[in-house]
Amino acid sequence: MAAHFEQAIAQQSLGVGARMPSVRDIRRLHHVSHSTALQVLRVLESRGLIEARPRVGYFVSDTALQMPAAREPLQLAPFPMQDHRFEGIGERAAEYLNKARLKGPLKVDLGSAMPAPELFDAKLLNQLAVALLREQPQILVHGPSAPFTHPDFQASMARYALGFGVRLAPMDIGATFGNSEAVNLALDALTQPGDMVAIESPTFYGILQAIEAKKLQALEIPSSPHTGMSIEALELALRTHPNLKAVVVVPHLQMPQGATMPDSHKKRLVALCREYRVALIEDDIYREFVESDEVLKPCKAWDTDGSVIYCSSLSKSYAPGLRLGWMNAGRWQERVQMIKFARSRNLPVWPQLLGARTVGSPSYMRHLVRLRQQLRVQRQAAAQAVARYFPIGTRLSLPAGGLSIWLELPEQISSSRLYDEALAVGIRVAPGDMFSNTGHYDHFLRLSCGMPFTDAVDDAYRSLGRMMHAQLGLPPRA
Amino acid sequence: MAAHFEQAIAQQSLGVGARMPSVRDIRRLHHVSHSTALQVLRVLESRGLIEARPRVGYFVSDTALQMPAAREPLQLAPFPMQDHRFEGIGERAAEYLNKARLKGPLKVDLGSAMPAPELFDAKLLNQLAVALLREQPQILVHGPSAPFTHPDFQASMARYALGFGVRLAPMDIGATFGNSEAVNLALDALTQPGDMVAIESPTFYGILQAIEAKKLQALEIPSSPHTGMSIEALELALRTHPNLKAVVVVPHLQMPQGATMPDSHKKRLVALCREYRVALIEDDIYREFVESDEVLKPCKAWDTDGSVIYCSSLSKSYAPGLRLGWMNAGRWQERVQMIKFARSRNLPVWPQLLGARTVGSPSYMRHLVRLRQQLRVQRQAAAQAVARYFPIGTRLSLPAGGLSIWLELPEQISSSRLYDEALAVGIRVAPGDMFSNTGHYDHFLRLSCGMPFTDAVDDAYRSLGRMMHAQLGLPPRA
Repeated sequence: MAAHFEQAIAQQSLGVGARMPSVRDIRRLHHVSHSTALQVLRVLESRGLIEARPRVGYFVSDTALQMPAAREPLQLAPFPMQDHRFEGIGERAAEYLNKARLKGPLKVDLGSAMPAPELFDAKLLNQLAVALLREQPQILVHGPSAPFTHPDFQASMARYALGFGVRLAPMDIGATFGNSEAVNLALDALTQPGDMVAIESPTFYGILQAIEAKKLQALEIPSSPHTGMSIEALELALRTHPNLKAVVVVPHLQMPQGATMPDSHKKRLVALCREYRVALIEDDIYREFVESDEVLKPCKAWDTDGSVIYCSSLSKSYAPGLRLGWMNAGRWQERVQMIKFARSRNLPVWPQLLGARTVGSPSYMRHLVRLRQQLRVQRQAAAQAVARYFPIGTRLSLPAGGLSIWLELPEQISSSRLYDEALAVGIRVAPGDMFSNTGHYDHFLRLSCGMPFTDAVDDAYRSLGRMMHAQLGLPPRA
Repeated sequence: MAAHFEQAIAQQSLGVGARMPSVRDIRRLHHVSHSTALQVLRVLESRGLIEARPRVGYFVSDTALQMPAAREPLQLAPFPMQDHRFEGIGERAAEYLNKARLKGPLKVDLGSAMPAPELFDAKLLNQLAVALLREQPQILVHGPSAPFTHPDFQASMARYALGFGVRLAPMDIGATFGNSEAVNLALDALTQPGDMVAIESPTFYGILQAIEAKKLQALEIPSSPHTGMSIEALELALRTHPNLKAVVVVPHLQMPQGATMPDSHKKRLVALCREYRVALIEDDIYREFVESDEVLKPCKAWDTDGSVIYCSSLSKSYAPGLRLGWMNAGRWQERVQMIKFARSRNLPVWPQLLGARTVGSPSYMRHLVRLRQQLRVQRQAAAQAVARYFPIGTRLSLPAGGLSIWLELPEQISSSRLYDEALAVGIRVAPGDMFSNTGHYDHFLRLSCGMPFTDAVDDAYRSLGRMMHAQLGLPPRA
């Protein structure tokens, strides 16, 4: 039994400074006598793993982790389920994420497309949060009254959607754990393993991961950095792949290329999907980030028969820490609700009410204007740094809005190698091969513009430029 | 265009009192002239749908919804995906839930197994929540630093688990959106459509729904109200069903029967699953509710090769409004993490830190003692009401803990009929056929004991008793 606790300390199930179970605890759990329990503690003490504090108890000692780690190997017998392996994007993404996790805190993170915390009005949000706890003191301990979305959130999002030309009955709006869950639920409702799903190429790796995790086939459709998915190529795919069950598009500021689809393309896309009786999943997470004098309508505005599933989120525009997404699944709404209920039940009410009270309000609209202005400044600073430090021949797609820039580097450069080199000095980037399974994007790179362009960020761009020049065998430009 | 807004008002995309888009909004979105936009508003005004408030704008009028509802029918073309249908439990559960939703607010809800809000210490929780917002003012606007679980939550749950004999490395603990997501992720990692999963019979309908939604086959294993799943029957199933890929058990206070598995059964179950190389998914959501002087070890405590996936949640014991579940997936931990990331990303940090700071603390342990005491009082009052009002021949399983009682009614009584009769007078119950696909449980009934036994609850029991007697053609007992 001493070995059990020794192992627990080595694994940090009991961390340094943690209080040991008492003699009484040990007796009750392990059904041993008082003297045995006491002896266990004394053995651990004699080995220097724990220390007694008189009249308080035993605690894990500071030096416990300096002991040789006795990590118990799992006795892994062969298991049929071990055949499951990560393939393609799942494996690559896991590798990148794990490397970054093992590296620990970063100096500059250019890898994630999220606005920096200081771009949000945390003070106002916290005031609203505290006021809500005062007003509804049982909100955190109340179980769900129904397995569905809160009516205030539904009403608020329905009103907001009407502002961009999408007419939804409030009761057909569902809150989800972020945009990711919404897109996943849509795929769950529409497909079964082996089915094919058409996506933009390149695209956000999260969509590729979701498709792979469901054992679907991702068909990458060539996409322009200006107008998005090629409608002609999609039409060919629809004609020739009878197992194509759904099309996923990001109509505004498509990730990573930054394209925004013209209305004429959106209309054709909706008509085409209807003609081939294929569902259109619209991931509209970046609409708030487009710089445009026009109000942009999503494809859903042209949906007349419920075959467009609309997914969005407040994570990037309002509060990344709430994980508040939403969707309307058109003709699959009922099925999606049941799958959502079976998988993860309802969302907490608390973030839904915060969203309901904010979205569409004048202060929220002002926040969005400020957010877009700030991001424009940051994108432009990033573009200038690219011009300053990166090799001649680097091509930049600078979209009209959004959280990142997308670069085509000279062909000899490997961005997956660059990822390792940069991570070694505390800089994280998003290498091109995370955005496609075609293998064509290793000399592409996505860099986040979510944070203010500080000296540290400038230094990071300089370092990246040096690494690129070194890969080319050239002297750096600065 | 007036028809568009008329429709939006009928659907309540714009509810009564909502502000209409301005002339400028309408021009920008619909690309029409000033005069056209103005005319649209005047047409709506002339129809009594909206009212002008001078120098403010137009608002949806109080009487708008008295107009004949012009709900636009979706033009539903045949769609191949419409072949997806709810079957079995999904359909039944959806029907029950929808009936309750249409009914509106309930007088007495005996249908959901959740402690009433007043059984939690909301004041303390809110204080902790506000303190956390002060201490980390950016917590709601901070994006995820990594796609994984917060280390404080991991450390806290690892220490807590050691207290019931389960030794986990903190880094192998994952936070999930409730226990439901944990069980679903486990099934995702282990199975593909067509595979078979063994479960207790009867069981919580959420498990049946999850299995059905994934197109798996649920094999219901006979289970005792005292010792849970029959190990002998499971062994037979393992010998004869080669596509059986996982076993799901609720070891403590199995829902709905209330069984708690003896340690000897847990050991045999773990050994049996190991022998047949089948994964064991352990859903331990009710362990905090068992009344026992012993510390109860879950099956996971006997897991030596990582073939037990342990799932639990703080939703029922600590704060239903946080949706804070957790799991360790044993040898499938890495795969589960990637599926979780692809589906719904990380949990918000905020609830994780609330959980981390509470679970295992002296105040938390005192709360659990009070919670169990209160629930015992409520269960006993419920049992007495059953004796008072329900027909002779009703058999009651009164478990040693938990949130509900499970009743076998005289065979002539249909609990699905009782559901409708009770709902008509504002009482919700959980009918037996929600807990199994075998069709054997229509004369069974689950009643929640989560709320204090008030006069209203007593009245509800009396009403239920009368309905049962009426079904039997007998006069009521009281």
